[in-house]
Amino acid sequence: MSSTANPLVFALILAGGAGTRFWPASRAGRPKQLLPLVGHEPLIAQTAARILPLVDWERLYVATGKHLVEGTAAALPELYAENTLVEPAARNTAPCIGWAAFHVARKNPDAVLMVLPSDHHIRDVEAFCDAVRRAVASAASGTITTIGIRPTHPETGYGYIELENEAAGGEVCLAKRFVEKPDHERAKLFVAGGRHLWNAGMFFFRARDMVEAIRAHLPALAEGLDAIDRAAEEGDEIAAVERIFPGLPSISIDHGVMDHLARFAVVPGDFGWSDVGSFQTAWELEGKDAMENAAPEGSVLVDARRNLVLDLRAGAGGAKRVIALVGVEDLVVVETDDALLVVPRARAQDVKDVVALLRARGDSRLV
Amino acid sequence: MSSTANPLVFALILAGGAGTRFWPASRAGRPKQLLPLVGHEPLIAQTAARILPLVDWERLYVATGKHLVEGTAAALPELYAENTLVEPAARNTAPCIGWAAFHVARKNPDAVLMVLPSDHHIRDVEAFCDAVRRAVASAASGTITTIGIRPTHPETGYGYIELENEAAGGEVCLAKRFVEKPDHERAKLFVAGGRHLWNAGMFFFRARDMVEAIRAHLPALAEGLDAIDRAAEEGDEIAAVERIFPGLPSISIDHGVMDHLARFAVVPGDFGWSDVGSFQTAWELEGKDAMENAAPEGSVLVDARRNLVLDLRAGAGGAKRVIALVGVEDLVVVETDDALLVVPRARAQDVKDVVALLRARGDSRLV
Repeated sequence: MSSTANPLVFALILAGGAGTRFWPASRAGRPKQLLPLVGHEPLIAQTAARILPLVDWERLYVATGKHLVEGTAAALPELYAENTLVEPAARNTAPCIGWAAFHVARKNPDAVLMVLPSDHHIRDVEAFCDAVRRAVASAASGTITTIGIRPTHPETGYGYIELENEAAGGEVCLAKRFVEKPDHERAKLFVAGGRHLWNAGMFFFRARDMVEAIRAHLPALAEGLDAIDRAAEEGDEIAAVERIFPGLPSISIDHGVMDHLARFAVVPGDFGWSDVGSFQTAWELEGKDAMENAAPEGSVLVDARRNLVLDLRAGAGGAKRVIALVGVEDLVVVETDDALLVVPRARAQDVKDVVALLRARGDSRLV
Repeated sequence: MSSTANPLVFALILAGGAGTRFWPASRAGRPKQLLPLVGHEPLIAQTAARILPLVDWERLYVATGKHLVEGTAAALPELYAENTLVEPAARNTAPCIGWAAFHVARKNPDAVLMVLPSDHHIRDVEAFCDAVRRAVASAASGTITTIGIRPTHPETGYGYIELENEAAGGEVCLAKRFVEKPDHERAKLFVAGGRHLWNAGMFFFRARDMVEAIRAHLPALAEGLDAIDRAAEEGDEIAAVERIFPGLPSISIDHGVMDHLARFAVVPGDFGWSDVGSFQTAWELEGKDAMENAAPEGSVLVDARRNLVLDLRAGAGGAKRVIALVGVEDLVVVETDDALLVVPRARAQDVKDVVALLRARGDSRLV
């Protein structure tokens, strides 16, 4: 077993995905992680900034889709081009995490790889980094580890991680199993019981441990990744990925690997985590004025309350288009170069209907 | 007395003025008459189009301010450049109407000049033209004539014209006097009595009659206009106007001339007139969909009701920026190249607060 003192740490940020919940801010080619939904930087840039105290750019990887390479590079100008793992097709999380694990294992099988979603918000970065350090140490000792979020309410939209025992302080706990999204009653029991944490999709492992786990539980995936590995050694990785990746089993790391492990560890996290699931959440997290408006500097707000204004025009920084809200409450107003949305905050989930309407209209440019 | 059969008819459209009630649509350099507040054409273009069956471009004049010459020309591309009477300073209506009257009298003292505001909306153009024809005939017979609007409600925002007798059908009536804006009680009496019409600022007269009236009642103005006349004959009108106009008495034609006439005529008008005084009125007049939204074609309206959307971006015709309203009611949404306004229809008058705020901020570019 390798030393756990100062493991070499790599990171993989998962940045595929699409979504219609943030239209017109989000588009097929500009999903949530590329947007400054909370704060001034795209969520993926905030994700990278959070872990840069722990990982160099040299060892920071991003997995994304072909159509997002350009946008991702724009959001992360310091990202090494060769550290972008371009998935030719979306195959869920196991193939791209496996790809990164095999890749890192070739360099250093004892190195620790952390896998993080790109589009979450974390309020207390210090506390997050503490949890990451503990998770890395746990992983370096040979145990595949996750960070689980202490639930603040009986959320039915997330999966949970059940612990063997009730979690106390910031220690590393033994996990029992992953639990699918519960109904409200079960979610309430989970929160009351203290043995369930939200699954935030963060994984920490030595490269060798994940390679071994994939060989054991996803042999078809291992076979494909071995072939990519061999091609990479011959300097032909891109063509091999292009050929092999679309045929890999499409499965999540949760179901494909974690569910089959005899044991894995969980670090309970308590750092103001959010998956920024809606405009409503963005408004809650964003800095607000005395009237609880979250709006760009320079906006003119006259007797306006609890509104969220997002100006995502490309020239937004330079162009001086003023946004004036007079006497309106609880609205979401989103500006992009080619669209304007006005919707009550409480009905923001209905923007999916707009996307459906535009699709039906054949207006694919706007979705 | 000249023949009333086929008088030569000139028109003067009054197109000065500014206003903050339609911000951000209206600006100092883009007042109400230059905006397509109802329909697709600027209100001044609709005004010109209404009277073109009766007046050639050759005899159609527009009085406006220096800063509006360019915008006016853009809204009326067929307007003869030499038919733009550029007021070097705003001196209310008597000086510019007088200027036009003296100008036309030089050409043909028996010609009839009609004076019309540029920024009103008229629903029934046929009925309006009928009224104009009657007013022109009345003027040609030597009586200064107005068109008065049959009041539909006890409006306290307009002046009234009192008739000698109750107005019957479409005949020409004798006026008794102009009445200032009444309070609500008096306005109710006016509507009930049938002897009061709204003063819509429309005047019809032979050039010689107005020249004579100005000589009689506004001698200082007559003196200035005579000097401009002499300069015009020497081909030096522009410099003379520049020099003389700012010193002319600043007074309305109502107070300066009409109030002093021994008699004048009124043609009662009943053609769906509106001065388009607010976004609320614009919404009432504009064509609406089944949910009572007035919005540009291509807008995406999901469960949205009774909203007014105005897209006044310069590139609005070409650029395909989609405006999506979801689940909102009774809003005004106005887009220009440099501003966006969202305000409840019922509070649209509060946009003046935005203008005040921008002024206080020193953001004069936006007001």
